[in-house]
Amino acid sequence: MTTNSNQVRIFDTTLRDGEQSPGASMTLEEKLQIAEILDEMGVDIIEAGFPIASNGDFEAVSEIARNSKNSVIAGLARAIHADIDRCGDAVTHAKHGRIHTFVSTSPIHLKYQMNKTQEQVLEIVTDTVTRARNLIDDVEWSAMDATRTPLDYLCRCVEEAIRCGATTINLPDTVGYATPDEYKKMFEDIIERVPNSDQAIFSVHTHNDLGLAVANSLAGVAGGARQIECAVNGLGERAGNASLEEIVMAIRTRSDALPYTCQVDPKFLMRASKLVSGASGFAVQYNKAIVGKNAFAHESGIHQDGMLKNAETYEIMRPEDVGVKATSLVMGKHSGRHAFKDKLRELGYDLGDNALQEAFRRFKDLADRKKHVYDEDIEALVEDEIAIAGENTKVIALTVIAGTGGPQKAILTMDVNGKHETREATGDGPVDATFNAIKAICPHEATLQLYQVHAVTEGTDAQAEVSVRLEANGRISTGKGADTDTLVASARAYVSAMNKLALRQQGSNPGALQAV
Amino acid sequence: MTTNSNQVRIFDTTLRDGEQSPGASMTLEEKLQIAEILDEMGVDIIEAGFPIASNGDFEAVSEIARNSKNSVIAGLARAIHADIDRCGDAVTHAKHGRIHTFVSTSPIHLKYQMNKTQEQVLEIVTDTVTRARNLIDDVEWSAMDATRTPLDYLCRCVEEAIRCGATTINLPDTVGYATPDEYKKMFEDIIERVPNSDQAIFSVHTHNDLGLAVANSLAGVAGGARQIECAVNGLGERAGNASLEEIVMAIRTRSDALPYTCQVDPKFLMRASKLVSGASGFAVQYNKAIVGKNAFAHESGIHQDGMLKNAETYEIMRPEDVGVKATSLVMGKHSGRHAFKDKLRELGYDLGDNALQEAFRRFKDLADRKKHVYDEDIEALVEDEIAIAGENTKVIALTVIAGTGGPQKAILTMDVNGKHETREATGDGPVDATFNAIKAICPHEATLQLYQVHAVTEGTDAQAEVSVRLEANGRISTGKGADTDTLVASARAYVSAMNKLALRQQGSNPGALQAV
Repeated sequence: MTTNSNQVRIFDTTLRDGEQSPGASMTLEEKLQIAEILDEMGVDIIEAGFPIASNGDFEAVSEIARNSKNSVIAGLARAIHADIDRCGDAVTHAKHGRIHTFVSTSPIHLKYQMNKTQEQVLEIVTDTVTRARNLIDDVEWSAMDATRTPLDYLCRCVEEAIRCGATTINLPDTVGYATPDEYKKMFEDIIERVPNSDQAIFSVHTHNDLGLAVANSLAGVAGGARQIECAVNGLGERAGNASLEEIVMAIRTRSDALPYTCQVDPKFLMRASKLVSGASGFAVQYNKAIVGKNAFAHESGIHQDGMLKNAETYEIMRPEDVGVKATSLVMGKHSGRHAFKDKLRELGYDLGDNALQEAFRRFKDLADRKKHVYDEDIEALVEDEIAIAGENTKVIALTVIAGTGGPQKAILTMDVNGKHETREATGDGPVDATFNAIKAICPHEATLQLYQVHAVTEGTDAQAEVSVRLEANGRISTGKGADTDTLVASARAYVSAMNKLALRQQGSNPGALQAV
Repeated sequence: MTTNSNQVRIFDTTLRDGEQSPGASMTLEEKLQIAEILDEMGVDIIEAGFPIASNGDFEAVSEIARNSKNSVIAGLARAIHADIDRCGDAVTHAKHGRIHTFVSTSPIHLKYQMNKTQEQVLEIVTDTVTRARNLIDDVEWSAMDATRTPLDYLCRCVEEAIRCGATTINLPDTVGYATPDEYKKMFEDIIERVPNSDQAIFSVHTHNDLGLAVANSLAGVAGGARQIECAVNGLGERAGNASLEEIVMAIRTRSDALPYTCQVDPKFLMRASKLVSGASGFAVQYNKAIVGKNAFAHESGIHQDGMLKNAETYEIMRPEDVGVKATSLVMGKHSGRHAFKDKLRELGYDLGDNALQEAFRRFKDLADRKKHVYDEDIEALVEDEIAIAGENTKVIALTVIAGTGGPQKAILTMDVNGKHETREATGDGPVDATFNAIKAICPHEATLQLYQVHAVTEGTDAQAEVSVRLEANGRISTGKGADTDTLVASARAYVSAMNKLALRQQGSNPGALQAV
């Protein structure tokens, strides 16, 4: 291992720590799409999930492993044989698979969570890392809550993990309270004091509770770490992990002050961001760095011309570097099936014949109703189509009467397992009436946790993209729908969330959910 | 001045740098509300606006100055006599007023923006700081683009500004590309090398383009700065300024590692965040630190019990510390006017008789339509009421027919300057039809830039809060509306944005808009 090299490995945990944040659950289809773009953009390691957590997680990790081209595919495993074995089974399909196993090392966790002594935990490290290493060559070991672990004990654990064959040592700031100076010093001290530290790559994993996730990650690298665990849009538990896009652009833009390299191609950042915000239902705020709507909106101050003329001072970030395109008029009602298929390919979609036919039908329908059809419109439509594919409950027709007069009324027809059903319902507002009609057709106990609408492009005839988050028995799912009619989009989003929730209630193992 | 003291002054620029971000324009009412809460929560300095930019800005700064109780009220001024005088006129109404004047010092700005030599700019510093200091005792001087200014020249400028009477010296990272180590070292070097540096407070002003705004601010403080310029929700140009709430909670939570104090009461953070996101129309993402919906959602990992039992390890952030309340059922259809008034006072609203009467009428109407009325519902309703008060164009009645059948139809009645007008319009979707009906009544050229809906509380009968952003002739405004009927809320939001846009087109001076 060459911890002295300046190449920083990017380890993306959008599909594990990110998907674990309440409400951010994704379907298998969505996970596969995200993994595909991460692989294509040059992410070194993709943490694809937590195989023991549920059959769905196992299937997702296995399928992503099978499809992987360049990225190492990692799965998470607690310090338990069953977890490690299940993880090994899932990642074995990858060209390069990794088992990522972890155990808490901080006194507070040992005492209150595990009720174990330091010696007992050290034995667990020996046992579990050995077990993992017997299954696969690439083993990452994490000391959960490392930043609150006494240094002497942390050194002993790290040395033992490396001795048993761990090739990557991750020292996470699990609670997100570290400062950059502290985090840097921890890596310096550990790497200096652990005799076999040259035999492993050290890794940072930070949380943004105090707004310091990116700075802490870079500080850890300055202290000797050469892997950064991060997530697209900074998704992750609580305030999230370090943002992959901020990490990548900090390293690339300030290569003079941060003498490291990373192999992620920034041109994919915007597409990855949109894909993840769509799948998770977590919108990106306008003033989010790199991928926010305003990130490159230079209203005043620096004169762009001047900046570009003097790019030697700093290597300036330009919107096109991170894949932000000007909105372009692409298609109209006279565009044919062939042009539509070409456009889809250009946008990165490769649909099967049935899905293509249905998407084209909806495109023509949209082009009839909307003057300009933009790339974003087609993306929304296709993503909606992908979400619907395979669902056995669908919206067929909807009529709503609403306004200040109330009560609002909805008449809805749905396809439930191939059978059409129609119901009428009233409600407090057109959305409530629509959702009541869905409930009349498909009775269920889920409660609405979040309802959000945004316009896909500009103009009053823009398609609306609706996100609906439902909760039932402690489980949460987010669905989305797109249509020029907000209410139709709302109905689609609600039904999509309902379908996901039904899916998710089969064969899951909630007890296995843990965070690093 | 005691730069050795450990008290860090919090300088909030939500109403200046924040309001300057494209699309975040606020009305006078909204600015007054935000300034009031900033003053109450203990913000040391409120930058209330840029008095020369428009009559509206001048009025806002003057009015905030008049109402100020404890905070210093600052206004921004370019290095021009007219700016400085106008700023002086606005802040003179405050108990403690401050003129904040700035000039670029970096070679790139001198050459391409100003076409001036270093000696000429130094003369401007002498002239403008002296001018400001002759008007008022409290003068802040900023070296725009300080992080890209040669240290020798920066030292000369800082020394001269202090000699001419500047009491605060701000060294902004205008382009947002600095790293914490660089920024810290700049303050250390300047404070060490400038002979009269002990006669001023040094200040940080960072931007989050690479996700480092909070870390850079804290690094600047470690380098000797004792004022932090920041904004609620990290509002500000491009990726925004450092988040006030992250700065405050980092200093408070990690007082062991960051031995500074600040006097902001964190219990107001959540209310301030909601107020600013409502007024600006910039929603806060779920995984935003401190004030995001998920910021305190501990799904897994750390056992909260264990954390609380061992609070000595770290002073843990708890939701209630930052003013996050459990959603509580408060009012129903049988609640009377007196109870409603008490509740409003508890929520921090003090309405006049007319506004109270109208708010109560809408509350009863809401209680008829919605099973549970929560604090958040009342807040949304009252804020909507405050936004509508004083508008001379209002939504009176709306009926919409929508669904998969199309075209969707809206029948709308509006009050325009006291006269009722009714029109019918069709559109691509119910929102488009509604907006077309508004356009039929009030013809205008504005285009829709953004349309967003979110539910105020949980459940399908929740009120919808809609944000609409309009653009006309390069000017942008955001309006919002709340109602259980999304379409009624949409109409209100659109009309509110339209009213704001009309307001804003009178007497503004766009050429004066500049960023630090």
